[in-house]
Amino acid sequence: MGRTANPATRDGLMEAAFDLVRAKGLAATSVDEICAAASVSKGAFFHHFKSKEQLAAAAADHWSETTGRMFEAAPYHDADDPLDRVLGYIAFRAQLIDGAPQAFTCFVGTMVQEAYATSPAVQAACWNSISGHAERLVEDIEAAVARYGIDADWSARSLALHTQAVLQGAFILAKASGEPEAARDTVHHLKRYVELLFGRTGRA
Amino acid sequence: MGRTANPATRDGLMEAAFDLVRAKGLAATSVDEICAAASVSKGAFFHHFKSKEQLAAAAADHWSETTGRMFEAAPYHDADDPLDRVLGYIAFRAQLIDGAPQAFTCFVGTMVQEAYATSPAVQAACWNSISGHAERLVEDIEAAVARYGIDADWSARSLALHTQAVLQGAFILAKASGEPEAARDTVHHLKRYVELLFGRTGRA
Repeated sequence: MGRTANPATRDGLMEAAFDLVRAKGLAATSVDEICAAASVSKGAFFHHFKSKEQLAAAAADHWSETTGRMFEAAPYHDADDPLDRVLGYIAFRAQLIDGAPQAFTCFVGTMVQEAYATSPAVQAACWNSISGHAERLVEDIEAAVARYGIDADWSARSLALHTQAVLQGAFILAKASGEPEAARDTVHHLKRYVELLFGRTGRA
Repeated sequence: MGRTANPATRDGLMEAAFDLVRAKGLAATSVDEICAAASVSKGAFFHHFKSKEQLAAAAADHWSETTGRMFEAAPYHDADDPLDRVLGYIAFRAQLIDGAPQAFTCFVGTMVQEAYATSPAVQAACWNSISGHAERLVEDIEAAVARYGIDADWSARSLALHTQAVLQGAFILAKASGEPEAARDTVHHLKRYVELLFGRTGRA
């Protein structure tokens, strides 16, 4: 094609997909709807992406980058104690759960639910996003294990992935119940679990 | 319609939907595919259901009934100690995680992920299924709280729902990673959490 690809158009298409997929899933979202939401022509869509599937996989990477920047800038990183950073991350995630599910739920978690078996490219991109995000917690969890002298029979990586499982499950409770409260409650259980693992609470 | 509805045909259609939806989601599953998988004509489908949406909502109820019977018959109910029954339930759930995700993941959790905003009937049926299943744990959790004299700042119902969130999140990890291991790991964290809540472990 003779045109120069406009990166803003490409980002706009992927960001339209974030909202549409979180509202109704990937299969129910058409290329036409993505184009309409991004105010982009179908010709421009196919200038940037070969197919909806290719857009979905690229959008999973873009999701990792944009949410990654937001988490990078969040204040929980400032705490001196690594356990406070881990608990601060969890509290930050709980704070984000507010309003309509399409605003706070996870683009990649929703997409992989449907597409894991039918689209290896989407599956791989979603796993990259989820496991890559979890990876950013590993260093703080390891530092907390060392600082608190915990004789852990679990790995930092498995606890980091568990935080992601709880969040993904929380989103399903919110979608099913129609209430963000159910999701926040389950994230509070996660916080309590981490506190108990590190002996931070007098309860139990 | 003049024909008498055959309950076996109706169940067969719903059970075909269990497998198809768990493999690729609700929107990607067509009425034609459900009919083919159930070896039923399209006429017979519309004799039983007005639409795919109506089948999906009815199938969520059928899912609750069939999985409910399986859990009812599981051996973990036999333990004398209510905490052993709760931990036995979690161990039973971990055992079920094996093979391909379409065999062990949750029909209603997959469906609500896509359909919560577009189909109130499917959303309500999925929430009934998830919250109804959680409700069956509440009595054992309450009995364990009483038996172990736990001064809980959480409700039995919220812990029961948390178990469901972890399981739903575990299924997403399994689908994304392509490995049941990631799902089993997160269920082991849930087991450890319940043990810690009831002071059953020396670790931490």
